[in-house]
Amino acid sequence: MLTREGCLSRRERLWRTLPEQVAWVLVTDPRHIHYFSNFWIDPFSFSSGARAFLILERAGRATLLCDNLAFRSASSPPVIDKEMVGTWYDHNHSIVNRDQMLEELLSRAVESLGTNRGLVEEAVFPLAALKSVNNPSVSRFDLGTVIRSLRRRKEPDEVALIKKCLRAAEAGHKRARQVIGPGVSEFDVYLEVQKASLQLAGRPAIVYGDFRAVNAARPKLGGLPTNYTLQEGDSFILDFSVVMGGYRGDTTNTICVGVKQDPVVVELFEVCRSALRKGEQTLLSGVMASRVYAGVTAELETIGYGGLVHHAGHGIGLAHPEPPILAAESKDQLQEGDIVTLEPGLYVEGIGGIRLEHNYLITAEGCQRLSQHALAL
Amino acid sequence: MLTREGCLSRRERLWRTLPEQVAWVLVTDPRHIHYFSNFWIDPFSFSSGARAFLILERAGRATLLCDNLAFRSASSPPVIDKEMVGTWYDHNHSIVNRDQMLEELLSRAVESLGTNRGLVEEAVFPLAALKSVNNPSVSRFDLGTVIRSLRRRKEPDEVALIKKCLRAAEAGHKRARQVIGPGVSEFDVYLEVQKASLQLAGRPAIVYGDFRAVNAARPKLGGLPTNYTLQEGDSFILDFSVVMGGYRGDTTNTICVGVKQDPVVVELFEVCRSALRKGEQTLLSGVMASRVYAGVTAELETIGYGGLVHHAGHGIGLAHPEPPILAAESKDQLQEGDIVTLEPGLYVEGIGGIRLEHNYLITAEGCQRLSQHALAL
Repeated sequence: MLTREGCLSRRERLWRTLPEQVAWVLVTDPRHIHYFSNFWIDPFSFSSGARAFLILERAGRATLLCDNLAFRSASSPPVIDKEMVGTWYDHNHSIVNRDQMLEELLSRAVESLGTNRGLVEEAVFPLAALKSVNNPSVSRFDLGTVIRSLRRRKEPDEVALIKKCLRAAEAGHKRARQVIGPGVSEFDVYLEVQKASLQLAGRPAIVYGDFRAVNAARPKLGGLPTNYTLQEGDSFILDFSVVMGGYRGDTTNTICVGVKQDPVVVELFEVCRSALRKGEQTLLSGVMASRVYAGVTAELETIGYGGLVHHAGHGIGLAHPEPPILAAESKDQLQEGDIVTLEPGLYVEGIGGIRLEHNYLITAEGCQRLSQHALAL
Repeated sequence: MLTREGCLSRRERLWRTLPEQVAWVLVTDPRHIHYFSNFWIDPFSFSSGARAFLILERAGRATLLCDNLAFRSASSPPVIDKEMVGTWYDHNHSIVNRDQMLEELLSRAVESLGTNRGLVEEAVFPLAALKSVNNPSVSRFDLGTVIRSLRRRKEPDEVALIKKCLRAAEAGHKRARQVIGPGVSEFDVYLEVQKASLQLAGRPAIVYGDFRAVNAARPKLGGLPTNYTLQEGDSFILDFSVVMGGYRGDTTNTICVGVKQDPVVVELFEVCRSALRKGEQTLLSGVMASRVYAGVTAELETIGYGGLVHHAGHGIGLAHPEPPILAAESKDQLQEGDIVTLEPGLYVEGIGGIRLEHNYLITAEGCQRLSQHALAL
């Protein structure tokens, strides 16, 4: 969960970016409501997909608007000063359109703000609620782009949450090494990985990613697991995320199926590992993302099978991917507080495929590796 | 997944409710996009939370608008005639605000519709995209309420999908009976239930609900599992849903922890079972939901511990709950195509808690029970 300290710090940073005459903002994107208030409707609840609004006032007050079922479905207690909770469901009456209840709550909330100037996050604000903010002191605003920019600098509570996701993922990687072998299906591996991840997490969580076997004939495959049964000579590319409270890391290992290791596949593995190290050396605040990419792909190219056919990595946090994008034509620049992945991979017809991935926090001094899973074929 | 036949039938029903001069509608709620086109962004993908638009034309064409990562993240192939897919992520460049790409696609799509009259589902339409439909032939419309009304009558493909969810849940119920016992934690039970459910489902799915132990001191608890360790004399209320493609059933059993069964708890169990049967007898198209409630609670009251302290059941499908609500003051009336739950429960201080639940399809002849899990203490 996000902390009070973290939520207040993020609000403070938001206010510094907005003109002084703006007295309040209405946050509408569920990820951003979470970012500023720790209110996150648990996807493992019957309210998944329900909506809420968050009003932040420069004077300090945070007001959450939602219905009673959504409020009850919070993953953990929100950091707010006031809640406006409409009783949508009371176990006694028919129900009305849930969205419309929220619009009514909003009308009341905005009225109470009087003539103070406010901004509405327009990217997710529903057109149907326009009448609720139809007021000369309220303006539409591309708050989404501003908040995306703030999101790059992860605060300590966000780093802690992503570390929790990574600890859970590491348990999954460990379990994968125990279960991957000939005769097991990709989906069997998924079931074991996700169970081990959740066991460590101590609560339900989304586990998604690439759970695919590759080989000389099909060196690059991605996506959710199939019923394919692993065979001697395959490699299993395990590239996955555990999502907790909307945050996630993104980690990869490639595991040999069976006991025989093709020496050329081992060579691919080793060059991916050294490309990861090369990449790590360039992870410094101020460095161009394209330079990180160049270093990783150049190292891969040394063994003569070409370089990257995808990015070298990307930002990760509340979304996947998010800036900075570590790619050839990227204009992004690393900055302190970024959490990025590095994921060198090589996929060679007639040989096989390998991808490895770790996550890093960009610090004032360089970078700190956040993920601890073993990279081992 | 939803079928072409089902999607076309639902569109046909939508058009019958709308004025003839309306030539197209813009669907914005992700559940409704799914309802009409089978396009559902897999929650087990990195695009969870991304958005899309669906334009349905009375002449027949369905156009899906989204970005390339969202398109790739569909749970199964959409039933559409045209896709307008913007390249948001190309593994080569920095990324822009993903929401804004969708707004641009929409401008182009609406332009191509010329002066034909269109309606926009305003409840989820983003204010930021207003300029894209700023056109005298386009109106805002409370399509959400219309579609919610259509949603009550489940079509065969929706029934089939909910049955799939129920088969997966039944595997979970079966597993629960094997693992529940003293010394096991609520969360252990969750892990086993969800693994068994997913194994049967054959793919990742959300498993949520109440996974709680109750007893004489705490006869009613709900919500996700805790680390509480089950003890002899507890009962485990297992009330959960498996969500596939946004659809779900909702089933409950209560399982005795350990070997000793308190005869009064057994009595509660038996009266819940007979209340379920009473409720079933009233599940007929045209019957008032309040009458179903009355029958269930009256049966529970026969043993002298009072009646229902919550609804007797509710509609289930793309949302949880959805109409009809089987409650005392409900104005709803059962209709053919409804899928409803019946969930009698009694929670008595000093004794314990019991809840049982099955799901039913309201048919022309009466009702058909859809769930097949064993009800057994």
